Amino acid sequence: MDVLILGAAGMVGRKLAERLAQEGRIGERSLSRLVLHDVVAPTPPANAPFPVVTAVSDFSSPGEIEKLVVGRPDLIFHLAAIVSGEAEADFEKGYRINLDGTRALFEAIRVIGDGYCPRVVFTSSIAVFGAPFPEAIEDEFFLTPLTSYGTQKAIGELLLADYTRRGFLDGVGIRLPTICVRPGKPNKAASGFFSGIIREPLNGEEAILPVPEDVRHTHASPRSAVNFLLHAASLDGNLLGPRRSLTMPGVSVTVAEQIEALRRIAGDKVAALIRREPDPVVMRIVEGWPRRFDAQRAKRLGFKAEESFDEIIRIHIEDEFRGEIVS
Amino acid sequence: MDVLILGAAGMVGRKLAERLAQEGRIGERSLSRLVLHDVVAPTPPANAPFPVVTAVSDFSSPGEIEKLVVGRPDLIFHLAAIVSGEAEADFEKGYRINLDGTRALFEAIRVIGDGYCPRVVFTSSIAVFGAPFPEAIEDEFFLTPLTSYGTQKAIGELLLADYTRRGFLDGVGIRLPTICVRPGKPNKAASGFFSGIIREPLNGEEAILPVPEDVRHTHASPRSAVNFLLHAASLDGNLLGPRRSLTMPGVSVTVAEQIEALRRIAGDKVAALIRREPDPVVMRIVEGWPRRFDAQRAKRLGFKAEESFDEIIRIHIEDEFRGEIVS
Repeated sequence: MDVLILGAAGMVGRKLAERLAQEGRIGERSLSRLVLHDVVAPTPPANAPFPVVTAVSDFSSPGEIEKLVVGRPDLIFHLAAIVSGEAEADFEKGYRINLDGTRALFEAIRVIGDGYCPRVVFTSSIAVFGAPFPEAIEDEFFLTPLTSYGTQKAIGELLLADYTRRGFLDGVGIRLPTICVRPGKPNKAASGFFSGIIREPLNGEEAILPVPEDVRHTHASPRSAVNFLLHAASLDGNLLGPRRSLTMPGVSVTVAEQIEALRRIAGDKVAALIRREPDPVVMRIVEGWPRRFDAQRAKRLGFKAEESFDEIIRIHIEDEFRGEIVS
Repeated sequence: MDVLILGAAGMVGRKLAERLAQEGRIGERSLSRLVLHDVVAPTPPANAPFPVVTAVSDFSSPGEIEKLVVGRPDLIFHLAAIVSGEAEADFEKGYRINLDGTRALFEAIRVIGDGYCPRVVFTSSIAVFGAPFPEAIEDEFFLTPLTSYGTQKAIGELLLADYTRRGFLDGVGIRLPTICVRPGKPNKAASGFFSGIIREPLNGEEAILPVPEDVRHTHASPRSAVNFLLHAASLDGNLLGPRRSLTMPGVSVTVAEQIEALRRIAGDKVAALIRREPDPVVMRIVEGWPRRFDAQRAKRLGFKAEESFDEIIRIHIEDEFRGEIVS
């Protein structure tokens, strides 16, 4: 199976490529080739049992996406996106990459014709939802994004469904919850503290908590994000019918519950590294975010996340510290 | 107030222009100019108390929409669209007009900048909904279109909301129910019989009913469609918040109830002109359509449709027969 990953230099794309290299297959099909594409050079995974090609370009530039699709990959992971903050700050760039780029990909696939109909796994986001919403968002709740990023993802979902219905491609959209614990350096995303209050203390560093401890949010580990992608890649499309996008499951916890889990796993001294420093700007942003999902459809279709936040922390320790931390 | 109608040669556009000419104002603001645009020449209304300009072009062609917006109309009715059947038959044309054309309009407005922020009334459609749905579709039910037309309208709604939220325009989207009784000749739309079984008998002609009489559907008169547009044009945008598109109210009746209303108003001889001729193709299409809406939000905001199907027939007789029919 010939596989293309768009957005392969990002955290999830990198972990997906590493996992493919380890396993050599998705479901029952072994990989014959992996193309990693991004706007900056992706790092090929070590020891892949199949050829890995890297490609660097702006896939929204005329003619670029066609070059990636002309070889007719059997499976395309479309993870490429301008993230929320940047899409809000740069209106034109957000629409160019997130809407025009996505549509250019689907069009490039369509115009090949000739029976070519690859599985396309599209990462959408819970940013397709906008307040006010119920305490738990059900599968049939409507999409009313309150950011340009969320708007572009919701449009991507609609296009994915229509191109699938018309038989041009075989799409599955997955709405990722907040991925936690994100490895690496702190970033400036408003949601960054959800990972920061776990990651920094485990590294022996202080973390700032800008919101009250009763804030509730839904998380899944980077490992779950990769599992979602792989499950979406091999899912029987007939089980989905015309509604191609799914809210992924996750662990809904308050910040207090996150901190208790950290204390259970790493002890009081580590948990004491969290400093409360309320930030009204972050608090206002976080108030507009969904707190909990009732992702029944995805669960019925076999998508699985962690069962507890303790498990999310343990996975972070396994994946980023080789299972060992000093507490 | 300078007003632009895109799609002015269509049935609703023509009736809207006639009404504006009669009233000379919308709410408290009088019209200073009316520009009627379509891909075929629109007919200017008689006796307008303001200048009327007609313009003919393909508004999705590069540079065309800019010409219409450069004069900074205060109010734009965007009714232009490739209809459902044609958008399904010609994928590229549907996306070019219904998606690219709509986006080109919004972009042309945005790039003027300089505080220009016109009210844009966008006609969406109940085609944004796709089966399966509940018996009555509520305001927060999700959009899962099953046609390319419905997909394009749903994307238009998302863009309208985002451009409004960003302050580039001041949009209101209205999802029209089936407009009944459509005047004029029968057309080949699958929904055509809903009007045909009223219109043809009133003209002393036979009409064919291709579905069982227990089929339920939601209707509003052409006069209500114009009322919706005018109400949307003068509605206080602050009452809408970020959710800019609304399902319009209508009269939900079965075909049997339509026929009973016709019998009450025009007598047995007229109602006897309906010939039952079941058509499995039409039946299958109609099964995928919504039957009833619970359009609470639009009603709270002052949108009004007819109270009964009798009223819809009487309006047809008033508007198309000057109130007189021979029965």
